[in-house]
Amino acid sequence: MTPGHGIWDLFTSSTFLSSSTPIKINFKMAALRFVKSVLLSFQKESGLEPRLFGENLRVTAAEPGRVDFELDIKKEHTNRLDIIHGGAIASMVDLGGSLAVASKGLYATGVSTDLNVTYLSSGGRVGDVLKAVVKCDKFGKTLAYTSIQFTNSKGEIAARGSHTKYIALAWKHPENAVDQLSPQK
Amino acid sequence: MTPGHGIWDLFTSSTFLSSSTPIKINFKMAALRFVKSVLLSFQKESGLEPRLFGENLRVTAAEPGRVDFELDIKKEHTNRLDIIHGGAIASMVDLGGSLAVASKGLYATGVSTDLNVTYLSSGGRVGDVLKAVVKCDKFGKTLAYTSIQFTNSKGEIAARGSHTKYIALAWKHPENAVDQLSPQK
Amino acid sequence: MTPGHGIWDLFTSSTFLSSSTPIKINFKMAALRFVKSVLLSFQKESGLEPRLFGENLRVTAAEPGRVDFELDIKKEHTNRLDIIHGGAIASMVDLGGSLAVASKGLYATGVSTDLNVTYLSSGGRVGDVLKAVVKCDKFGKTLAYTSIQFTNSKGEIAARGSHTKYIALAWKHPENAVDQLSPQK
Amino acid sequence: MTPGHGIWDLFTSSTFLSSSTPIKINFKMAALRFVKSVLLSFQKESGLEPRLFGENLRVTAAEPGRVDFELDIKKEHTNRLDIIHGGAIASMVDLGGSLAVASKGLYATGVSTDLNVTYLSSGGRVGDVLKAVVKCDKFGKTLAYTSIQFTNSKGEIAARGSHTKYIALAWKHPENAVDQLSPQK
Repeated sequence: MTPGHGIWDLFTSSTFLSSSTPIKINFKMAALRFVKSVLLSFQKESGLEPRLFGENLRVTAAEPGRVDFELDIKKEHTNRLDIIHGGAIASMVDLGGSLAVASKGLYATGVSTDLNVTYLSSGGRVGDVLKAVVKCDKFGKTLAYTSIQFTNSKGEIAARGSHTKYIALAWKHPENAVDQLSPQK
Repeated sequence: MTPGHGIWDLFTSSTFLSSSTPIKINFKMAALRFVKSVLLSFQKESGLEPRLFGENLRVTAAEPGRVDFELDIKKEHTNRLDIIHGGAIASMVDLGGSLAVASKGLYATGVSTDLNVTYLSSGGRVGDVLKAVVKCDKFGKTLAYTSIQFTNSKGEIAARGSHTKYIALAWKHPENAVDQLSPQK
Repeated sequence: MTPGHGIWDLFTSSTFLSSSTPIKINFKMAALRFVKSVLLSFQKESGLEPRLFGENLRVTAAEPGRVDFELDIKKEHTNRLDIIHGGAIASMVDLGGSLAVASKGLYATGVSTDLNVTYLSSGGRVGDVLKAVVKCDKFGKTLAYTSIQFTNSKGEIAARGSHTKYIALAWKHPENAVDQLSPQK
Repeated sequence: MTPGHGIWDLFTSSTFLSSSTPIKINFKMAALRFVKSVLLSFQKESGLEPRLFGENLRVTAAEPGRVDFELDIKKEHTNRLDIIHGGAIASMVDLGGSLAVASKGLYATGVSTDLNVTYLSSGGRVGDVLKAVVKCDKFGKTLAYTSIQFTNSKGEIAARGSHTKYIALAWKHPENAVDQLSPQK
């Protein structure tokens, strides 16, 4: 990308290069900015995310390999027991895995191969906030492995999940930022 | 329930008892009717099902222990690649498992413990129909085990899943029809 | 391979080519022979299979994409409840997935990415036979997807599983028979 | 149990009660001692554990809800690629889940309902040590939920897993130590 345009100014601007701020903090800022841009793309270009989550799902923190997000539970997320639906949580395992892959610098986030969810406790009712931390445990050329844990408003583990993604084709996307966010690879 | 009211007329009417139609067919009719009533309850009382699936998801066949259903894929079910979203499929693994439990006679269908999905091929695009067959492989007093397979419009296995449900409390629901649909238990 | 040597004589001999036996049956014979040769290789070259299963595990049928096998349950397969151990079943989900991949013609069978097992009923005690049917549901260049179901001596589903394998490197093995067993690919 | 007999002397002896050592440390000591006694019971009474792991698997630390253990990889744990077999790891997901349940005070550890393993990197070769940390994430009257992570000798996540256990019947075992190790429940 050309310096001066879009989110990667952060990396190319002289402010960034000459910054005395520790690089780790800049990495976090860059990762957070990039993950938010990917979530925005989901909200704009995907069908399910705006329908099911919209403004109710927020990324609260990110660094390369990890994303924290939370959901304001609304009626549309619930089941007949008036608690958050297993399908809503499973959908966030999927979306969260994509965000974790994004935190490593992929704008395109591949397709799912395996997704597992274990439900331990109620995730909460309308008005509660469900928090999630998702990690990219391995980031390979072909496969990415992510894991997620959800915490309800009582501080209990509500659910945990695993999401394996096939990302071989995602490496070609022009808006990727892998060089910036996963420089070791 | 009192004879003459609601869906269980089928079982209590003299027409049913004296019927010369093979019992197996009546079982299927009863199961289909009951599963459809449970799906209707999901559409009315739950939050996620009407938001995400609504009229686009139809039960096409049922017998005790098995339900066939299909989804007209709409924009709201898709991801950024314009194919059906892994979260939409995972939500149908959850809902489908509940319908399979319903096919055994439970109106209340318990809560999830473990849900797995494996994604093999694209489930299709807007305008395609995704078909699913879900089975209740074991129906115990505490746990029910269900498995599901999705077939895309090319006839390929798009995904398969497993859903384990904790149903101990579901046995108490007044609208259950276990005696009718799972008479052996 | 040169005609006249090894297991692929079956495909190259004139007997095969001029056979009036339906090709489907020859496919089954070839698949069974090949899968048995792969199992033999596991017994000889691997560490876990001879230690845990040895002669007690037998392939009883195979065709491209499907393998039937069974285990004579011995003391070494059991847990403290004197029934077959979840780890023994999980090990057979892994091994079975490899055999299903072999039934499509791969002698090398790749590495695991995800393995799931759901345990429905006891698999049996010492002296019982546990039967398994494993299928290769999709056989791609990079990933193979297999599923398995175990039936105990009462005819109940004891367990079912899913096993996803990364097979990109397995395609290079000189003893593969993919052209013969998966000619459509 | 009568004071003066068996492993629970630890809890009943005056040394324990009058100890000035912080209670948390005594909990850890008690949990470690108890988990080791359960592992010993597996080695003596089960079939698979002595066959497959024996002295090569050691518990290195424990506290209520968490167990650390490690395996010296031997030939019998390997696959045809001479690295640790997916089945050996899956068996340790199962065994590890049982040990995590034991760390909460159950001597009997129930039966499996769902077991998932995701394989990220090679677990190692003969001579390497594979380390595992397993946690009991929820300990209910009917179900216990455990999760595990394996680290290879390079410090990479080799695999992670989830194991859900049905423990309703395990609560009746006379050698349980739940009152001591899970006093809050």
